[in-house]
Parts: sequence; structure tokens; C-alpha cells
Amino acid sequence: MTDFVPEEFRGRVTQLQAGMAAVGVDALWLTSAPDVFYVTGFLTRFWESPARPWFVVVPAAGDPVAVIPSIGAELMGQTWISDIRCWTAPDLQDDGVSLLASVLLEVAGSRGRIGVPMGHETHLRMPLADYARVKAMTPEQVHADVTDLVRRVREVKSAAEIERIRAICGVGTRAFDRVPLIARAGVGLDQVFRDFQIALLEEGADWVPYLAGGAGPGGYGDVISPASSRPLEVGDVLMLDTGAVKAGYFCDFDRNFAIGQADDAARRAYATLYSATEAGLAAARPGATAADLFQAMHGVIGQDGDAGRLGHGLGLSLTEWPSIIPTDHTPMRAGMVMTLEAGLQIAPGRIMVHEENIVIREGGAELLSRRAPPELPVLE
Amino acid sequence: MTDFVPEEFRGRVTQLQAGMAAVGVDALWLTSAPDVFYVTGFLTRFWESPARPWFVVVPAAGDPVAVIPSIGAELMGQTWISDIRCWTAPDLQDDGVSLLASVLLEVAGSRGRIGVPMGHETHLRMPLADYARVKAMTPEQVHADVTDLVRRVREVKSAAEIERIRAICGVGTRAFDRVPLIARAGVGLDQVFRDFQIALLEEGADWVPYLAGGAGPGGYGDVISPASSRPLEVGDVLMLDTGAVKAGYFCDFDRNFAIGQADDAARRAYATLYSATEAGLAAARPGATAADLFQAMHGVIGQDGDAGRLGHGLGLSLTEWPSIIPTDHTPMRAGMVMTLEAGLQIAPGRIMVHEENIVIREGGAELLSRRAPPELPVLE
Repeated sequence: MTDFVPEEFRGRVTQLQAGMAAVGVDALWLTSAPDVFYVTGFLTRFWESPARPWFVVVPAAGDPVAVIPSIGAELMGQTWISDIRCWTAPDLQDDGVSLLASVLLEVAGSRGRIGVPMGHETHLRMPLADYARVKAMTPEQVHADVTDLVRRVREVKSAAEIERIRAICGVGTRAFDRVPLIARAGVGLDQVFRDFQIALLEEGADWVPYLAGGAGPGGYGDVISPASSRPLEVGDVLMLDTGAVKAGYFCDFDRNFAIGQADDAARRAYATLYSATEAGLAAARPGATAADLFQAMHGVIGQDGDAGRLGHGLGLSLTEWPSIIPTDHTPMRAGMVMTLEAGLQIAPGRIMVHEENIVIREGGAELLSRRAPPELPVLE
Repeated sequence: MTDFVPEEFRGRVTQLQAGMAAVGVDALWLTSAPDVFYVTGFLTRFWESPARPWFVVVPAAGDPVAVIPSIGAELMGQTWISDIRCWTAPDLQDDGVSLLASVLLEVAGSRGRIGVPMGHETHLRMPLADYARVKAMTPEQVHADVTDLVRRVREVKSAAEIERIRAICGVGTRAFDRVPLIARAGVGLDQVFRDFQIALLEEGADWVPYLAGGAGPGGYGDVISPASSRPLEVGDVLMLDTGAVKAGYFCDFDRNFAIGQADDAARRAYATLYSATEAGLAAARPGATAADLFQAMHGVIGQDGDAGRLGHGLGLSLTEWPSIIPTDHTPMRAGMVMTLEAGLQIAPGRIMVHEENIVIREGGAELLSRRAPPELPVLE
């Protein structure tokens, strides 16, 4: 269970409702795990099962309505939500469709304007055919994309949210401190991955939804692969990148280590990425745009940058809006939690990535991850 | 990386293409992690990030085309897929939309019939607005729901898949053997969850996407909650239910334990669920329907059953089709991997659930999880 006070959720809903009023939306229809958790506090790993959809309807005024499979009634009943409508799922004929349609009609009226997140970084977490069925049952309602509305509210974290992200970043920091006990020449990368996940759990993570990384001579090939069984070798650069969760909130940062020794190219790449992150930290203040952060970091990295994104929002999911790319002009606001993720190509097929987590404060960036060391650490 | 031979994937694609020919579909458009993994072997935890969509297009004949963000090119390049089209994501203006549309037109023709999974247990893992944009760029193509086609192929596991599920079920079995060292009166349920995840990793799980459970006097409240910090007490029934992953395949089974002592109601409930599972095991043979399995198990459980589903398919995701419910008439076929998940209500707010994993063989059910003991184990 989440340990937020109900006022936390009321504040979120009030902000969403202000946004709804501004764009003339009568109800939000939310389906994704982060959106449902954000509004209700309903926290479960049961989203891993695709068998059942889960819905929350946020009215223009008043409290949200949960429209959920009865298997979740007990857990939803422990949240601040009091209006919980259930059906017995899975129902192969009508898997919550008519129940949801009736709630949308009740809350928004037969000609209501329904806000559904349809934009970048969203997806509709229910069968597409059932979405069409709901629309057919509410034929005069109009659907509007509310991605911008939802993200503007979710992007700025409350003090309570920031403390939770700080807590899981602390877990990550302490787990990375243990990597010298885990990784050495001869140990398979898959074993390193297992032991690092164990370290995260021992340090207080509730679960570890994300761990990626790589290892190779002087750099690694990519940053999204699962682990192979290849043993670490002297001269490898090892990178571990984790998204662990505590109380529903993610960290997302990585660390690099040289195994036994580091070559000059790896040391130089690391130093460049460290400097690029320093530039990002200096640029990350209210009013600067995501594109400004990109330019600040890219200016240090130079032509070796791969033009991918150099960071992103963080919180209820591993990655959130905005993206630190040249075309994202989202302004930083106090309370936004971001990753700075500088990367470059050392040689073809050999990259290095360096990531930190920060919160934007009025005076500038505050680190939530403990800053990586300025020189590439060598594990003996 | 997955260690399947390319023939494994060619066999899957051949089966999908036979299904496509039967229903007159010119191309499959797949977006979800299990579907993409099934066809390509592309295995990554990067799906945890909602920032980027991933597409695979399966033509009526020939090999699939991957249409993916360039950050995945290296990893996809290690699979059997040779036709890999990339864009630099995230692209706020065109996030793979025009590239995908061009591939759909190339593969299926301007008036092609495109198969998209839209039915039960599926969702479209991309922004809904971008789905509409792709449709607008392919205005004469027609979309058809191919949920049945995909599930008929995915439901029957190959010998290589069954061995992978057997391996992760073995990991789960060995981790459950260690619960007596983890759980005792006075230990918080959250600590039990952490230590059990560590046990799963130590026994060989690659990662642990799912762990739920509960503990309470004589039974627990629900089966989808994360752990509270409440210490276990003498007389509690503890249940742990895990979906751990190895080489991309899931187990999904649970175990119950009494802390210190068990009351008669809990012992009786356990014995009933054990017998219900025996009935399910006896009924689970080719030709029997999911509904037949439900009736066999429900007949033992009787009126205390909560009429929820009593099991489901298993493999590339924690839960798959079919559902063991009265209305699912899917016939069992040799090679299907299922869970039998008998549950009942001991008293209001106190339930018990008992789950095993099996594969359907010509001669009947073969257990993949080691059978739970016939009597409720008591941890001293």
C-alpha cells in the first residue's frame, strides 16, 4: 500500500480538474498503471497480467470513480477512493465495457467530452475492440487527447513524491557501492545482474522492474540488453542501469566501472560524460527547456554524441515526459524530477552512458542520486 | 539474449502465416512485448519504458520486418531478423508512424488487410493517436482483429518453450523450499517478499516481474496486494505467488504456509483446494475444455468458490489465454501450458488460493511445478 495521505490525492485531482476545466473536458478516462496509481494510490504488480483492464474516471468535480475487476476490490478499498464499481473479470462477453460506458454517461452526460491520453509515451491499456465497444455505447460523447493536461500535472512532483524518489535513489546509490564486491574478471555478466538485483532488494527496493547494462572491451554495445553469460574480462567497461521501485516510485540511473584496468579512450569518454553532466546540472533550472539541457550537454559531448536523448522525466514510471532532445521545448519547473543521461560513441559498437537523477529546485538542480565519481572507477 | 535456434522462430512464423492465409490477412502488425518476443526473440526489459513503441510486421510469406527505434538496432541485430528498419526515437513529430505506414504498404499493398490483435488479453502498445495516424496514411487498408489467430499459435508451446517454462518452474520450486528459512512470526511481510525475491534470483531467475501474496489470521484478504510491513503472527496463513522469468518465460504458482500453527478451518480449506487441484489435474487432457476444467475443480470447491477464474494459460506473459471459467470453451491441446488456480473463501475477507503449473500431454497433465504437499505446511 501507498502511505500518502488522502490530501495528496485530492491535490492531484484538483489540479487535473483545473486542467479539465481549461480545455473543456467533462471526464478523464484513465487506463494505465501510472495514471491509475497517480489518482488513486492503487499499487499492485498485478498489472503484469494482461488479462484484466482497470479504469478510473475523473469527473469535472468530485472524487474519481474506480471501475475495476472484483479481484481488485479489496485493495482499491484500502485507498482513498470510495466509489468503486466492480465486475467479475474476465468476462468474455462484456469485460467491464457496459459498466464503464454507464459510468462515463453518468459522470459526463450523453454528450460529454471524454479526455483520454492518446499522445506520446501513453498507450490505451485495454483491448482495442473493447475501446470501440465503449465508444459505440456512448455514441454522442466526444473523445479528446488529454496527454498534455495529464503530463503537466504529473510532471511536477509533490514534496511527498520527491521524498519517495529520493529514497529509492538512495537504495540505488547504496547498491552501486556494493558493485566492487560483485563484479570482477571471470564473473559472468548474468551473475553480476543477479547479484546486483539482490543488492538492490537488500538495500530496500520493493522490486526491480528494470535492470539493463553491458560489458565489453573499452565500452559496450548497447544499453537495453539483458545479460549474457560472458565472463567479465580485464579491460572491460561494465555498465549497470537500474530502475528499482520503492513505494511505487522509480529511480533510473547507471554507473560505469572498468574491470582491472581502463584504457585511455574509456577514461577520456568517462571524463567527457562527467563534464557533460556537470553542464546539464548547471543548466537545469526553472525556465530552461529540455532542449536547452540537451544543448548544454551536447555542447560538451560534441560530435561523438549519438543524437539520442540525453535524459527524461522520472517518477511513477521508469521514463516520463519530457525528453531531453533538441525538439522538446518543455520548460523546467520546480519539482520536476529528471534524469541526465549523457552518452557517446567511443568507437563503432562501443558506447558509454552516464546517468544521474535530479529534482529541479528554484535555485537549480538538486541531485537525488549520489554524484558518480569524476574518474572512471577501476575494480581490482 | 534468447538461445532458441532460428528454426524455432521460422516454425512460429509459418504457423502464423498459415492462420493468416486461412482468414485472408496480408500482414500482422504486432506491438506488444510478448508478441514481438514470440516472433523475433527480441528480449529486453526496456519495455518498462513507455517512451518508445516497437513494431513487427509479419508478411503473408517470407520473414518478418522489425520497425523499431534505433536504440534497439544492436539487440535486434542479434536475433534471426534481418530486415530491421529504424528511426531515431523519440521523435515528437513522427515517432515511427510514416516508417511503419510505408512498411505496411510495402508488405500488404495499398488495399491490404492488416491483422491487429484487438481482443481479450491484448492491448495496442503505442499511442492511440499514432495508431490513428498510421491508419490515415494507409486509408484503403482494412484492419481485422487477429487475437484468435495469434492465440491459437501461441497457446501451444514447442518442446523448447516447455523446457524453458520447466526451468523457471524449477527455480520457483527451489525458492519455495527456502521459505521456512525466510518466514516466521515477527518478520514483516515486506521483508518476506524481499527475501523471497532474493531466493528466486539466487536459484536462477533472471528477473522477478511479479510477486504478490498475503498473510492474515487463518487466511488472507486478497491475492494482488504488495506487502505491508505487518509482522507475521502465529496462526497466520502466508501465501506467496510468484511470476519469475528465465530466458523470457514465466512461471506462475503460489504456496501457502501456516505460521506456528494452523486452525482447523485453514487446514480444511487447504485440503479442499488440494483435492480440487487433483480433480483439475485429472481433467486436464486434450479435448477437455477450459470450462470442463472449471467444472471439475469447482465441483470439489463447492459453494465456497468465489466464481473467479480457476487458472489460465502461461508462458511469454504471466497470464495468457485461455481462462478456466465456465464460459471459456477453448479445448486443451497437447503442448498447452496452464495454471490450475483453485481458490475459496474461508470466511468474509479470508481467502485461500492454491496454484500449480502444468503442460497438457497426450496422456494428460504433466506437472511443471513440484506438487504442493497435501497438507498445509506449518512453519515453526
